[in-house]
Amino acid sequence: MAVAVAERKVKLAELSLRAILCVLSALAAALVATDAQTKTFFSSYQKKATFRDMKAMVFLVFATAAAAAYSLLQAARCCVTAARPPTARSRALAWCVFSCDQALAYVVLAALAAALQASVIAKRGQPELQWMEICGMYGAFCRQAGGGIASAVGAALAAALLAFVSAFNVFRLYGGDKSGGAARNGGGATW
Amino acid sequence: MAVAVAERKVKLAELSLRAILCVLSALAAALVATDAQTKTFFSSYQKKATFRDMKAMVFLVFATAAAAAYSLLQAARCCVTAARPPTARSRALAWCVFSCDQALAYVVLAALAAALQASVIAKRGQPELQWMEICGMYGAFCRQAGGGIASAVGAALAAALLAFVSAFNVFRLYGGDKSGGAARNGGGATW
Repeated sequence: MAVAVAERKVKLAELSLRAILCVLSALAAALVATDAQTKTFFSSYQKKATFRDMKAMVFLVFATAAAAAYSLLQAARCCVTAARPPTARSRALAWCVFSCDQALAYVVLAALAAALQASVIAKRGQPELQWMEICGMYGAFCRQAGGGIASAVGAALAAALLAFVSAFNVFRLYGGDKSGGAARNGGGATW
Repeated sequence: MAVAVAERKVKLAELSLRAILCVLSALAAALVATDAQTKTFFSSYQKKATFRDMKAMVFLVFATAAAAAYSLLQAARCCVTAARPPTARSRALAWCVFSCDQALAYVVLAALAAALQASVIAKRGQPELQWMEICGMYGAFCRQAGGGIASAVGAALAAALLAFVSAFNVFRLYGGDKSGGAARNGGGATW
């Protein structure tokens, strides 16, 4: 029975992480994608900063939007399969879920790192290369982008933890092969 | 005996990946850390570009140097423990190795993404933000940085695969709990 309780805890952790990932990714995508600020100079000349000016921010919007959609679908799958008994297809499904989760974690992290690098340049500039800071001029734009990046940090953490839970779910099916192949024929699977 | 052969294949894959990671990381760190170019303007005014001008490149040097040192130590551990019989400490060690490998994969990937973002700005510029491209002026500097980044891409791939092998090594120790706890008491461990 202790195994069943542990099973339920793992399932609950997975579902919670998918929900957190979905909410934070959607928030990050929304904050960055709606980020724009127009400045007027000399009462006639206008200049607009949008997230499209930085390729890294565009990448972040796509990555977090994909993460939100994917984790919504996966959360639905979690709810549907929670009550089902384990089947012979458990191992293939676990592999598929783990591969997607790990790839998602890497993509979200890469997008976050690139966006962070771009925002550090935007905030502080890189005077040696004549790249000037722009946050003094576009304060509101930078603050909203900062909020989006903070949400993306939370999403990346949730994605990394989720990849970890999925790895646990797939590789434990390979253990105990020496004790009679219980896991091999699906006995260790509890999807 | 099939299990023993598979064991040996996993060990060999792990050792090869650690060796590849060590070589590529060291190469990336060396290429980026020695990257500098001096330009002379109007036959007297000199301007020097070094990797220190970009914080992302400094981060990449530290991350890849750490990856090279870590994978050298881990490769040595692989060689030392290869011939030893499994012990009760196998599970703790596998956890420790997996955590470090996964963290390393994330750090190397994050450093690579940030460096790639910085190098895309250096190569193409971001005219909307008045960040000018610098590779027209510092061609040799950019080519060497490109070589370093290419090595870092290989290192990041090796680190991701290694995290995957380590995940397999740790989580299979948790399988087959329903078949008598063979894995729980170390029976499933084959370190």
